[in-house]
Formats: sequence, structure tokens, C-alpha cells
Amino acid sequence: MKEFRVKIEVKLKPVVLDPQGKTVLQALKNLGYDEVGDARIGKLIELTVNDGSTEKVKERVDEMCKKLLSNPVIENFEVNIEEQNA
Amino acid sequence: MKEFRVKIEVKLKPVVLDPQGKTVLQALKNLGYDEVGDARIGKLIELTVNDGSTEKVKERVDEMCKKLLSNPVIENFEVNIEEQNA
Repeated sequence: MKEFRVKIEVKLKPVVLDPQGKTVLQALKNLGYDEVGDARIGKLIELTVNDGSTEKVKERVDEMCKKLLSNPVIENFEVNIEEQNA
Repeated sequence: MKEFRVKIEVKLKPVVLDPQGKTVLQALKNLGYDEVGDARIGKLIELTVNDGSTEKVKERVDEMCKKLLSNPVIENFEVNIEEQNA
């Protein structure tokens, strides 16, 4: 059994409006950061997973994302897996 | 003037309790994903910035993080800057 650190980025699909991002963008502009053109907000999920192989982890984490961690209708997700050295 | 894509990861400091992460962990376990040992939730902020150089962008974005995008008392942030090709 190995330990893996899994990083999942969940982002709104590009066609989906992001009101939270728009609010952050406006706040940045109000603070004088006029160089910022766009802002979008997503989620970052970090898991520690104990399993046999990277392939197995990838398969199971994809499933978790579809079932619980993301909303596939409006969000995309990206999974990054790193094996931890003991 | 160049265009940069900036990715900011805002995470709770390791010593700070993460109730949202604990809830996600419990939900994963209830769904049968017993291999998951820990879960922590952070924010992912993506900005498009128009500025002169990577150094300048880095400096300004660090400032934005401290002022608005993160809570330095309980959160750490990590900035990643990529220049866009025209």
C-alpha cells in the first residue's frame, strides 16, 4: 500500500457565468489593480489516498469527482496525483 | 504590454481546522471510498493580467493576495504566473 497526494482543481466551464469571479474582479479594480482583465474562482481539493497504484487512484478519484466533488453539468475537473515517498 | 495568466492557490494553513474538508472526507467514506485518509479544501483563483514583466506581475499579485484574496492569518497562498503567447 502506497500513499498518494491528490490535487483536484474544480473550475467552472468557460461558458458558465462566474458571479463570484466578477465580484473579485470589481473589488481588485476598486483597489486600483486595473491591470487585471478577468478573474475566475474555482475549488482546490487535496486528498491523501492509500492505494496500490497511480492508475487505480486516478480511476477512483475520477469517479469521486463525478459523483461528489464536482458538478459535471457546469464544472470541469483536473486531477494531479503524486506518490509520496516513505 | 504582455498578457499573463495567473493561478493562485489559497489553502488553509496546516494547523487550521478545515470543517469543510472533514465533511467531504466523511461523505467520501459514506460512498465507500475508504482509501481516502484526509481531505482539505482550498480556493483556486485565476486571473488574466496585462502588465510589463513577470516580476512586476508577481509583486502586484502578492500584494492582491495579502490585501484581498487571502486571509494571511489562517491561509497560505501560492502564485503561478504564465506568459501568454500572442
